[in-house]
Amino acid sequence: MIQTDILIIGAGPTGLFAVFEAGLLQLKCHLIDALPQPGGQCAEIYPKKPIYDIPGFPEVLAGDLVENLMKQIEPFQPGFTLGERADTIEKLEDGSFIVTTNKGTQHKAPIVAIAGGLGSFEPRKPLLENIGKFEDNGVAYMIKDPEVYRDKKVVIAGGGDSALDWSIFLADVASEVTLVHRRNEFRGALDSVEKVQQLKNKGKINLITPGEIVALHGEAHLESVLVRKKTTAVEDIKLEVDHFIPLFGLSPKLGPISDWGLEIEKNAIKVNTFDYQTNVPGVYAIGDINTYPGKLKLILCGFHEATLMCQSAYQRIFPDKKYVMKYTTVGGVSGFDGSKKEAPKAVVKAIE
Amino acid sequence: MIQTDILIIGAGPTGLFAVFEAGLLQLKCHLIDALPQPGGQCAEIYPKKPIYDIPGFPEVLAGDLVENLMKQIEPFQPGFTLGERADTIEKLEDGSFIVTTNKGTQHKAPIVAIAGGLGSFEPRKPLLENIGKFEDNGVAYMIKDPEVYRDKKVVIAGGGDSALDWSIFLADVASEVTLVHRRNEFRGALDSVEKVQQLKNKGKINLITPGEIVALHGEAHLESVLVRKKTTAVEDIKLEVDHFIPLFGLSPKLGPISDWGLEIEKNAIKVNTFDYQTNVPGVYAIGDINTYPGKLKLILCGFHEATLMCQSAYQRIFPDKKYVMKYTTVGGVSGFDGSKKEAPKAVVKAIE
Ligand SMILES: Cc1cc2nc3c(=O)[nH]c(=O)nc-3n(C[C@H](O)[C@H](O)[C@H](O)COP(=O)(O)OP(=O)(O)OC[C@H]3O[C@@H](n4cnc5c(N)ncnc54)[C@H](O)[C@@H]3O)c2cc1C
Ligand SMILES: Cc1cc2nc3c(=O)[nH]c(=O)nc-3n(C[C@H](O)[C@H](O)[C@H](O)COP(=O)(O)OP(=O)(O)OC[C@H]3O[C@@H](n4cnc5c(N)ncnc54)[C@H](O)[C@@H]3O)c2cc1C
Repeated sequence: MIQTDILIIGAGPTGLFAVFEAGLLQLKCHLIDALPQPGGQCAEIYPKKPIYDIPGFPEVLAGDLVENLMKQIEPFQPGFTLGERADTIEKLEDGSFIVTTNKGTQHKAPIVAIAGGLGSFEPRKPLLENIGKFEDNGVAYMIKDPEVYRDKKVVIAGGGDSALDWSIFLADVASEVTLVHRRNEFRGALDSVEKVQQLKNKGKINLITPGEIVALHGEAHLESVLVRKKTTAVEDIKLEVDHFIPLFGLSPKLGPISDWGLEIEKNAIKVNTFDYQTNVPGVYAIGDINTYPGKLKLILCGFHEATLMCQSAYQRIFPDKKYVMKYTTVGGVSGFDGSKKEAPKAVVKAIE
Repeated sequence: MIQTDILIIGAGPTGLFAVFEAGLLQLKCHLIDALPQPGGQCAEIYPKKPIYDIPGFPEVLAGDLVENLMKQIEPFQPGFTLGERADTIEKLEDGSFIVTTNKGTQHKAPIVAIAGGLGSFEPRKPLLENIGKFEDNGVAYMIKDPEVYRDKKVVIAGGGDSALDWSIFLADVASEVTLVHRRNEFRGALDSVEKVQQLKNKGKINLITPGEIVALHGEAHLESVLVRKKTTAVEDIKLEVDHFIPLFGLSPKLGPISDWGLEIEKNAIKVNTFDYQTNVPGVYAIGDINTYPGKLKLILCGFHEATLMCQSAYQRIFPDKKYVMKYTTVGGVSGFDGSKKEAPKAVVKAIE
């Protein structure tokens, strides 16, 4: 059982920044995310695109923002349960909560902060009848650890940035990469499309377009796929492969959280604007997933909400302590790893 | 008469970021600040100190944050009335406001956003009976334009960072710089103290410590000051000078704004948390100057408040338009200067 002070569901920018604000109050955090990497929408949907409205950044790539946040929270050593979806919540007699994921991982904390954005990112799956049988046995909808594919034969399906970028990346890792897409045209960043063209020309990526995977075969583990190539004539090709990775996009679903007894409005969790607490005391909702009068689904608003939420969480955990806020410039940042960041002190010195 | 869409009182980080959010809505802003430079507390009190809790910046100097914000709002060409204090507000029949400064400058706008922080920064003045007579005639408490002092004889009084840093700066501009402080010890950044020591050794700064200015003389303009040097014996020295700049610190005062008919609580302006509007419709208060349940006087909170405020201001100005928020990543940033920032578009391209 993982234990922490604040259990954060969702490792998007809001959840990540909450770790920092909690850390300033000496509270520890653990994050759960359905995605294999932190960053939420920024990391999953538009990592290479610029954002212009993060205060103090005339321009910052979404992926760089996530990297900066990860660096900012490093001193507070957050724990992560990645690639798992928070499915159930249970309130214990002592007022604390147990949250369990779809893979059975249990987390216990006195405070739960739902920073779930538009919901848990779930893959769009191809309609192949026996695909469920091969999930985790050769079929994956997201890439958690690229090393799994080292020296293996891999088929990727899809026509967007993920399919392009993972084909490029795995071309150097896997023994064989085949990219299948139902159109000739790919949709993505220009340099990704051009890079795939080059790798195809060099024979490092096999390209089958327009094409589609129509069947999966194998005993316990995937052994081959049938690709239907649809040029003038239809041609079925059997490919011996170890892995099939359909990258048809992830779409966020509020999912199980909608059954947690929280007040929901317009697919979002209702909170007050005092501390962004839900109708269940001890459960907060911050960032894109919450709603209140005037709500804007913007990253900078999530940062503010996370900050106020942490103050309230502190008061709940330590009802008798009076917390006096100290500016970071004045008090510095004391990490759980023993690190200390501090402004250089002024000197008092005679000039002779 | 200066006319604009949103008149912002206070050019601290909150007021500056409001310009950006207003600009995204194609609303123009003008800022008034009592200080000669933008940046509020960050620029005036701790420009060279690091802040650790600006989201996405593991560390940023307060002065650099202000510079970044100035760069971010550049496309929206804000106007500035600097070195003047907003003193009175008047509501016109058409619902718009006229704000007049202590120097008589008038500003008209349908929306007023008070981003006044802890108040208007006012200088601490030395107790010299005729000092008022020389204000703007040789005596200044802040340096607005250093070129005023080119090839002039200048006396600076004070023992902190401002006195040190301006002595260093003016050593290369003025024909003569004398620094007077009532103690031998200065209090400031180590490198500033050391630099003044070097310039003193080179004869580029005259140092009189411990000492104090005890009298000012001159007809219309300042002509000389009397310095009392307090070593073992007390010695009065007459210095012929063109300028006397006492830098004893600035302290913020809510001042005239407290008489504007706004609900005040704990020296701050009460607002709602829907759009940070005050009890006077059309007048908003954002950043350190406002108060509401849960309020934290943090820079990141001011950013959020500025953003929600601008949405509401837009609705007030255009009650019939339905504004649909667009992410900057998607819609880009269209400056009033004709500039356009935009994310590179995805291509749709065949791979052959
Ligand atoms: C193309 C695009 C451009 C954008 N441009 C801008 C912009 O310019 N400026 C701006 O401010 N905003 C922009 N946004 C919006 C911005 O990305 C979101 O406001 C922000 O990501 C919200 O952060 P969050 O942390 O609240 O949620 P998210 O980033 O959505 O992260 C939530 C995370 O929670 C996880 N999660 C949810 N439920 C569960 C569960 N039950 N179990 C496990 N994990 C779960 C999800 O998998 C996800 O990773 C843009 C969005 C898109 C799609
Ligand atoms: C030493 C120190 C360290 C700090 N460290 C941190 C930190 O680590 N993190 C953090 O988030 N915050 C920190 N703060 C607080 C932070 O600086 C403030 O929250 C922030 O400056 C508030 O911004 P603002 O724009 O609301 O107001 P301000 O920065 O106070 O700016 C308000 C401006 O309005 C002007 N003004 C007011 N009234 C009038 C008037 N009538 N006419 C004309 N001008 C007027 C003032 O002159 C001033 O320039 C620190 C503050 C100090 C002093």
